[in-house]
Amino acid sequence: MGRWDPDAEGRLRTAALELFLERGYELTTVADIAERAGLTARTFFRYFADKREVLFNGSARLQQLMVETVNNAPKNVTAMGAVTAAVLATSEFFVDNRDFACRRSSVIAAHAELRERELIKLANLSRSLAEALNRRGVLEPDASLAAEAGIAIFRIAFDLWIRNAERRELGEIVLDLLARLKGLSAET
Amino acid sequence: MGRWDPDAEGRLRTAALELFLERGYELTTVADIAERAGLTARTFFRYFADKREVLFNGSARLQQLMVETVNNAPKNVTAMGAVTAAVLATSEFFVDNRDFACRRSSVIAAHAELRERELIKLANLSRSLAEALNRRGVLEPDASLAAEAGIAIFRIAFDLWIRNAERRELGEIVLDLLARLKGLSAET
Repeated sequence: MGRWDPDAEGRLRTAALELFLERGYELTTVADIAERAGLTARTFFRYFADKREVLFNGSARLQQLMVETVNNAPKNVTAMGAVTAAVLATSEFFVDNRDFACRRSSVIAAHAELRERELIKLANLSRSLAEALNRRGVLEPDASLAAEAGIAIFRIAFDLWIRNAERRELGEIVLDLLARLKGLSAET
Repeated sequence: MGRWDPDAEGRLRTAALELFLERGYELTTVADIAERAGLTARTFFRYFADKREVLFNGSARLQQLMVETVNNAPKNVTAMGAVTAAVLATSEFFVDNRDFACRRSSVIAAHAELRERELIKLANLSRSLAEALNRRGVLEPDASLAAEAGIAIFRIAFDLWIRNAERRELGEIVLDLLARLKGLSAET
């Protein structure tokens, strides 16, 4: 496997997750990850700033996808409609990555530092969505409320989706949660 | 002012916030805080584990108050009704502490480490509320959804409430946001 292997990133990712689960996140080094993937540490650093970024470097793309989906929603789409479209767009983003997502969640759940980083990424995602809504003319506090509701749905849907017993697509779960939130809010 | 001053905790809190804003959070020591309050470091440590806890030691009481409010809601109250009661209960908790809350928010906003801690506290609060709902017989994912919606409303209401231009009570803002969430969800 040469240094120009087109799937070096994917191999490094798979190797890292295997090692994080086998021997623990703290005890895994970049050298270990590169070795397991049959690549060099130099190649590792072409894709990731450090081992933590193996778990988090997808979040910039996810944020971009969600913000663009809000930006591209037709003018007459409501705030919650635009947020829903953004959350549904993540379904395709993750469709081929369920195994990675499951393993990633196990590693994150076991480390306070990683759970904190995940919370920060989600808070940033929520703020970006609120700002995208602001640019569409949605005023505060509605923009922040819709963004927070969307991120809450995304997070809960994602946690359900990666369970072994769950058979629905991520998008189906999102729509179910959206209907549930509507029902819960209507009851007050 | 003697060592048995009954408001030692309040004076330490006020002194700490003054110093955090005057010279920065990092550059303020426990000795500085005690000196400004006219007390000893020993007294400081009777109330707070470290200077960060001046900002966060209220969250355990807040969590207890919100969980008890959910626990004490009559059986026939809905999930979102119980969460709303819990969020409204915070209004009384904070009513005499608006100045402290404003200053605290300024300090937290200026420090990534403190913002992270705030996110963790809010995530823990949300999980505690979901668990309290579970004990009332509210199943998942509704319990988590209602808890997340409640915490989103609490956070946004709180940020509005501490603004200088805001004249409403925290509880009024909470009820306004709840109505807005209902409207936003109904539009989808």
